[in-house]
Amino acid sequence: MSRGKSQTQRTRSYESDDHERGACEWCEYALVITLATILLIGVSALTIFWVFYYRAGYAWADENPAKQFNLHPTLMVAGFITFSGFSVLLYRICRCFRRIYVKLLHAIFHALAFPCIVIGFLAVFDYHNKSGINNFYSLHSWIGLVAMGLFGIQYAVGFFSFLLLLICNKGTAGFRASLVPVHAAFGILTFVLGVAACLTGLTEKALFDIGTERYSALVDEAVILNTIGVSMIAILAVVMYILSRDKFRAPETRDGHIRASVDL
Amino acid sequence: MSRGKSQTQRTRSYESDDHERGACEWCEYALVITLATILLIGVSALTIFWVFYYRAGYAWADENPAKQFNLHPTLMVAGFITFSGFSVLLYRICRCFRRIYVKLLHAIFHALAFPCIVIGFLAVFDYHNKSGINNFYSLHSWIGLVAMGLFGIQYAVGFFSFLLLLICNKGTAGFRASLVPVHAAFGILTFVLGVAACLTGLTEKALFDIGTERYSALVDEAVILNTIGVSMIAILAVVMYILSRDKFRAPETRDGHIRASVDL
Repeated sequence: MSRGKSQTQRTRSYESDDHERGACEWCEYALVITLATILLIGVSALTIFWVFYYRAGYAWADENPAKQFNLHPTLMVAGFITFSGFSVLLYRICRCFRRIYVKLLHAIFHALAFPCIVIGFLAVFDYHNKSGINNFYSLHSWIGLVAMGLFGIQYAVGFFSFLLLLICNKGTAGFRASLVPVHAAFGILTFVLGVAACLTGLTEKALFDIGTERYSALVDEAVILNTIGVSMIAILAVVMYILSRDKFRAPETRDGHIRASVDL
Repeated sequence: MSRGKSQTQRTRSYESDDHERGACEWCEYALVITLATILLIGVSALTIFWVFYYRAGYAWADENPAKQFNLHPTLMVAGFITFSGFSVLLYRICRCFRRIYVKLLHAIFHALAFPCIVIGFLAVFDYHNKSGINNFYSLHSWIGLVAMGLFGIQYAVGFFSFLLLLICNKGTAGFRASLVPVHAAFGILTFVLGVAACLTGLTEKALFDIGTERYSALVDEAVILNTIGVSMIAILAVVMYILSRDKFRAPETRDGHIRASVDL
């Protein structure tokens, strides 16, 4: 009897008041969304700072292909991380919007990422050709190609599914609901691959341009490059944490009720 | 009226028979688990093949520190990818086991990963010191340090939670249930960081040892190294796909009933 009583007390001690938990959750939500916003904007800002301060800025000209190359890291970070990151988080940020508006915003943010990725790819492809460097030999380029392919497929699937919603909302609800977890899983995979491509690209850039000796002495530029990489790791951590918290979802999609999310 | 009828037909056309869906799901489950198993064992096998065929095998001796370095990629791939990958997937592979046995197996697989990671770290640390190379300057090492730190914390939290389960199962159920999603999210993050550390490490190795010229000519060793990297990307894709499919969970933990998973 006394054992049972002590167990009840122990159970209670781990349960906080509902109101307190609600305030605590709201604080946690506000904190991680703010942190994600700062990191997503910060990583692009830091990349632009790095290019201007250490790599002489941007250009698209035959006489200075190195400046043209600088468009590659900047646009890829903007496309694969900043815009895609915000696009993924929209489903947790705009919780009180109608679903169709969140989907539209999701499509718009990815539509902003699209030209960044295309121009970012063309910048390095053209730079390689102008400088006589082989294309598609490195692990970085292979990962980048897979990430770009997935991004394209995901965009097409999302667009097709959105068209189906507009044409025949009720009739395609079951089909679209079955797409949601696959689209979400491959979307997160595309984001992770984008980060992996950026990290291997930063490693290549550090060894090519800073050089092993200066890199291992951790000169200023090395610290900046490593900080860009670590920011991406932090973004990955925060984004995955936000997505894993069921409490951060819009109420109608919580507890596995994903079917509701395909309705208007 | 006729519009309503056509909508019903359209809805039906997307719904397959329950039995057929069950068989289809089982096939999909068997396929992805087999694929994951092949990839997880394959990536370690390919790394060992690469070291023996192109990098002269292993040793721990003062006269040939390069052979000592070879322990680093092999053990880190085994620890962070093969053993950790299986450990994560156990919750989807051993679906008919009692939860406590799955947890024990999860702990055992991570206990196998632990010495791999520690010896893998000591191998490169000692190699750097013997060869007069600076430590902890590269993005690869920073990511690796974060991954190792997270691995250690996760192991401690998991061990502590398991102890609580043994000492006071019912009384700590609520507390342990609240730990499950955080432990799972940070576990996946640790796995992703392990993969990111391996990918940046492979990039460094390719540029240091194969050299830019031979790497860009895609010599045999470059293809092997890139294939190891792409296998890791494939592992990430398959593992994330398996984890995202609610149908692959053990029945008692489906549809957000994660609380059940903390019971004996």
